[in-house]
Amino acid sequence: MNRFALIGVAGFVAPRHLRAIRDTGSQLVAAVDPHDSVGVLDQYFPEARYFSEIERFDRFLEKQRRKKEPIDWVSICSPNYLHDAHVRLALRVGANAICEKPLVINPWNLDQLSELEQEYEHRVFTVLQLRLHPALIALRDRVQRSSNHAEVCLTYISRRGPWYHASWKGSQEKSGGLAMNIGIHFFDLLLWLFGAAEVSEVHLVTPDKMAGRLELARATVRWFLSVDEQDLPSGVRSAGKTGFRSLRINDEEIDFSEGFTDLHTRLYEAALAGHGFPIEEARPSIELVHRISHNAVVPARGAGHPSLSP
Amino acid sequence: MNRFALIGVAGFVAPRHLRAIRDTGSQLVAAVDPHDSVGVLDQYFPEARYFSEIERFDRFLEKQRRKKEPIDWVSICSPNYLHDAHVRLALRVGANAICEKPLVINPWNLDQLSELEQEYEHRVFTVLQLRLHPALIALRDRVQRSSNHAEVCLTYISRRGPWYHASWKGSQEKSGGLAMNIGIHFFDLLLWLFGAAEVSEVHLVTPDKMAGRLELARATVRWFLSVDEQDLPSGVRSAGKTGFRSLRINDEEIDFSEGFTDLHTRLYEAALAGHGFPIEEARPSIELVHRISHNAVVPARGAGHPSLSP
Amino acid sequence: MNRFALIGVAGFVAPRHLRAIRDTGSQLVAAVDPHDSVGVLDQYFPEARYFSEIERFDRFLEKQRRKKEPIDWVSICSPNYLHDAHVRLALRVGANAICEKPLVINPWNLDQLSELEQEYEHRVFTVLQLRLHPALIALRDRVQRSSNHAEVCLTYISRRGPWYHASWKGSQEKSGGLAMNIGIHFFDLLLWLFGAAEVSEVHLVTPDKMAGRLELARATVRWFLSVDEQDLPSGVRSAGKTGFRSLRINDEEIDFSEGFTDLHTRLYEAALAGHGFPIEEARPSIELVHRISHNAVVPARGAGHPSLSP
Amino acid sequence: MNRFALIGVAGFVAPRHLRAIRDTGSQLVAAVDPHDSVGVLDQYFPEARYFSEIERFDRFLEKQRRKKEPIDWVSICSPNYLHDAHVRLALRVGANAICEKPLVINPWNLDQLSELEQEYEHRVFTVLQLRLHPALIALRDRVQRSSNHAEVCLTYISRRGPWYHASWKGSQEKSGGLAMNIGIHFFDLLLWLFGAAEVSEVHLVTPDKMAGRLELARATVRWFLSVDEQDLPSGVRSAGKTGFRSLRINDEEIDFSEGFTDLHTRLYEAALAGHGFPIEEARPSIELVHRISHNAVVPARGAGHPSLSP
Repeated sequence: MNRFALIGVAGFVAPRHLRAIRDTGSQLVAAVDPHDSVGVLDQYFPEARYFSEIERFDRFLEKQRRKKEPIDWVSICSPNYLHDAHVRLALRVGANAICEKPLVINPWNLDQLSELEQEYEHRVFTVLQLRLHPALIALRDRVQRSSNHAEVCLTYISRRGPWYHASWKGSQEKSGGLAMNIGIHFFDLLLWLFGAAEVSEVHLVTPDKMAGRLELARATVRWFLSVDEQDLPSGVRSAGKTGFRSLRINDEEIDFSEGFTDLHTRLYEAALAGHGFPIEEARPSIELVHRISHNAVVPARGAGHPSLSP
Repeated sequence: MNRFALIGVAGFVAPRHLRAIRDTGSQLVAAVDPHDSVGVLDQYFPEARYFSEIERFDRFLEKQRRKKEPIDWVSICSPNYLHDAHVRLALRVGANAICEKPLVINPWNLDQLSELEQEYEHRVFTVLQLRLHPALIALRDRVQRSSNHAEVCLTYISRRGPWYHASWKGSQEKSGGLAMNIGIHFFDLLLWLFGAAEVSEVHLVTPDKMAGRLELARATVRWFLSVDEQDLPSGVRSAGKTGFRSLRINDEEIDFSEGFTDLHTRLYEAALAGHGFPIEEARPSIELVHRISHNAVVPARGAGHPSLSP
Repeated sequence: MNRFALIGVAGFVAPRHLRAIRDTGSQLVAAVDPHDSVGVLDQYFPEARYFSEIERFDRFLEKQRRKKEPIDWVSICSPNYLHDAHVRLALRVGANAICEKPLVINPWNLDQLSELEQEYEHRVFTVLQLRLHPALIALRDRVQRSSNHAEVCLTYISRRGPWYHASWKGSQEKSGGLAMNIGIHFFDLLLWLFGAAEVSEVHLVTPDKMAGRLELARATVRWFLSVDEQDLPSGVRSAGKTGFRSLRINDEEIDFSEGFTDLHTRLYEAALAGHGFPIEEARPSIELVHRISHNAVVPARGAGHPSLSP
Repeated sequence: MNRFALIGVAGFVAPRHLRAIRDTGSQLVAAVDPHDSVGVLDQYFPEARYFSEIERFDRFLEKQRRKKEPIDWVSICSPNYLHDAHVRLALRVGANAICEKPLVINPWNLDQLSELEQEYEHRVFTVLQLRLHPALIALRDRVQRSSNHAEVCLTYISRRGPWYHASWKGSQEKSGGLAMNIGIHFFDLLLWLFGAAEVSEVHLVTPDKMAGRLELARATVRWFLSVDEQDLPSGVRSAGKTGFRSLRINDEEIDFSEGFTDLHTRLYEAALAGHGFPIEEARPSIELVHRISHNAVVPARGAGHPSLSP
């Protein structure tokens, strides 16, 4: 049985990891979070040790290693800017890491993690669960069989209240900003579907929305990301919904609204079987988002996402 | 429309308050928690302001007061030892308070709150939701009509993992200990049903369980509280359940397993209508638990809870 | 004997307040700081209570008030952005406040404090200790007797290492920025000496330096503030010094390098005698700095501080 | 030139380490402390990087290691219960560690550190500066030449205000308690002077004082430790002093009141020269204090420290 430890157990994404650990027949032996509101442990792993300080958690994991019973895996759901530090912790105590997206905020930290993987002889996998979505796998097959250059329009709007900007997620330094925190899944998806980015233009940047255009190997993409409720299509708002996700390829809407429930579990199964998403798979989207985050904003000149036109 | 602010929005009990605020047609305008994992706000009140520091939250509330638009109510779900401070904050900014149980850990702080209620001309209500449970209201009617002295056996076991003891809940100083944090509802219930405590004996105290005997005006009560999974009746454990609650009166089991879902909403309705549970209603159980917490442990000599007998 | 409480006792400016409290024959009864490295208390007031949480400190002060033995004064040396919240705390528990500079970051919060002073019938004094400096008092007399419009050049360079920018002092939101945190004393001094600001131009803003020009009622001022060691005059650096302060009026250097040692004590004496620096005295410099902080940067066009010229 | 990093730079003992680093001609390149009141860096190493989070500090040190320019030494002045975690951090980034006393709170953690020293091929030294005190070195020579069994009376009283008990130092779990935090130097000294402990009796334990008797290989020791001002000899108190340290051997008072100023520097010199105090030198006193902390309290029956007699 695989033995896990988890970093960030009080956060909102932790339950998906706890469930994946349980549903893959694995065991959680320890968890850490500076915030001690972690009753969720009782639901999944009532025997798990809990620590409110990373140093004490590290002591526990190190003890397991010295007893020749190292933890097999460390799951990492801490704030983005701490991911690489917590991956190092995992490797040092003799465990593999499964780390939430984005694996790192700054691409050059990927090289460090790669070298540490080698040095410590353990693996680092990241969470790119959209690549496990059946509808998107089917789409990719179709795209790869086609020889056409596609016209893609990606829209992702997910309302967040004022708390978002007052939390670490609203800090460029801690989350990597909107394109990194909200957008990384979609940029990874686009690169995975349509190949490398040749051109990136950014047309709009505010604290709560961003838009731009990408020329990928096999597609031109106009994209729009927002956490501002005002951007929701009126029909969506009046239906009381708070999010909107649309991927249009050559004017065909791709439906992937279902099938999200157990992607973390699928991802854990893959990782435990040794074919999770390794560092190099995380790299293209992190490099692209880093580039987008540092792009100067330029006018769309008619080539931008439809949301930009009045 | 009643305007609320809430303290402790990242904690596990906050959603019940958020729902009660929403379901009474009220509005949450601000919330605070040092931990910024507060996405739950989006579900209930996406417009609410969020603060990670109590000082900034206070600034916002004070501004409302100065604009002659004071917040009407402050809901308090912070760790127990901070309750009285947060009630003071509510009163100072011109709001009433609805405060989670226990209202205070040390009974003498109730006097201070009473005086502040008068001084600031606002009310303080606490959360004693069991008193709103239909089955328990019916029971109380029955008990009050009876002239018999009852024999009561109360058992409450609710498994908590190691995290409990490593969190503020496991700190005597911060939670008031097991009898205060887990037991207060039941002690309040017993006093409300059977009248004042004449005798209190404590037979067992460990970090994860306590037991004792009470002579109340109209009942003798043997009680047992535990967060230790080992104390669950074997049938309960084998059924995969993690809690057990039993109230036996003269060998009749009182069923109150249902009807818990919206008690916070009922409580908010009562408070908004001006007849919530005021400070004086909170006092007897807090005084009793304080006494229990300071009781010397004595042998049960056959008069204890059945769990104590081998 | 005046009884004090102090907020921010682990910070670097606290010892000056502790000494002033002691040297005015007053007593410190309580202190608070989230950081518990507060051994300094043993040197000055070994009997003082210490709290690591503001809520518990507030409980203690409120208890004194209820016992009709309120604390007389609360000294405030917390981070700038918390000053107004801590002044409110002082007033609410029936004490006067002596608050480090800047009293607030945003000028409109002064109005709130003024109204609270009235409501709670206690006073708020701020720390403008340069106005108590004998050489500067003499200078002001001289300036006020003169009818000339002065040409003033103010230079203040005080090396800070990288820690400065990583601490709350480096955060615009928490400290108010360089002009507020480092400059406020000098802007207050200039206004006090030369009258109200008619024109403010800003010529340079970087994270570690700022420069500009002011037209005051009786002087034209070119100013330069920096925490960058590179800006120190070479003679100063080679002498191993880390700060440089120069005030030139019509090419005459004003010497006020001595006489700083006990200004906080002088200030406390004044406040205890009822003539400290009240809110309205703090206002002009806070308004000016706020304006400077929001000024667009414009070219100096030869009218700037000499440091700007190559 | 030796390159250092330092953990706990905002604490009260940090300046001694900063001075020792400077006075041995070494360089501090980075420092960390969750509390950002670290202006002390400007005095010693204005170029040093500062981090408020251990994870970011670790990232910086790891980067140095990957660039083949590892930090040579990490100085550790964090709270006692974190020492071993911070020693691990030092070893993992390829540095030696100089760690404040006590090296660990629980003796079994010494074994782990020893194994890590081997695994990472770096050294761990602790701070036992009394062993470098000239008067005590002279005393040891004398003791070792003597064949007599000595009668020793050790008294150490160092007033601490209420803050001490409210800080991590007052927490048994975090500091190891009075015997560990205040007493470790003296127990180490006694063992170093008089050999291993055969018998340990404890006669008194309160939150602010402890007393007992030791049978060492070459001495019987009656000891008394206190942070309670009331225990100061009346002459000491009336002289305005706040501490009292007495070591009597066969009724001769050993004077070691002077010579403390630069012991940290001496210790750093020794460590840099490869002959600091290694883990095994720290072990006897940590084991003894651990034993004392778990000793049952027994009556002194006339064999106790004179302070215990009325």
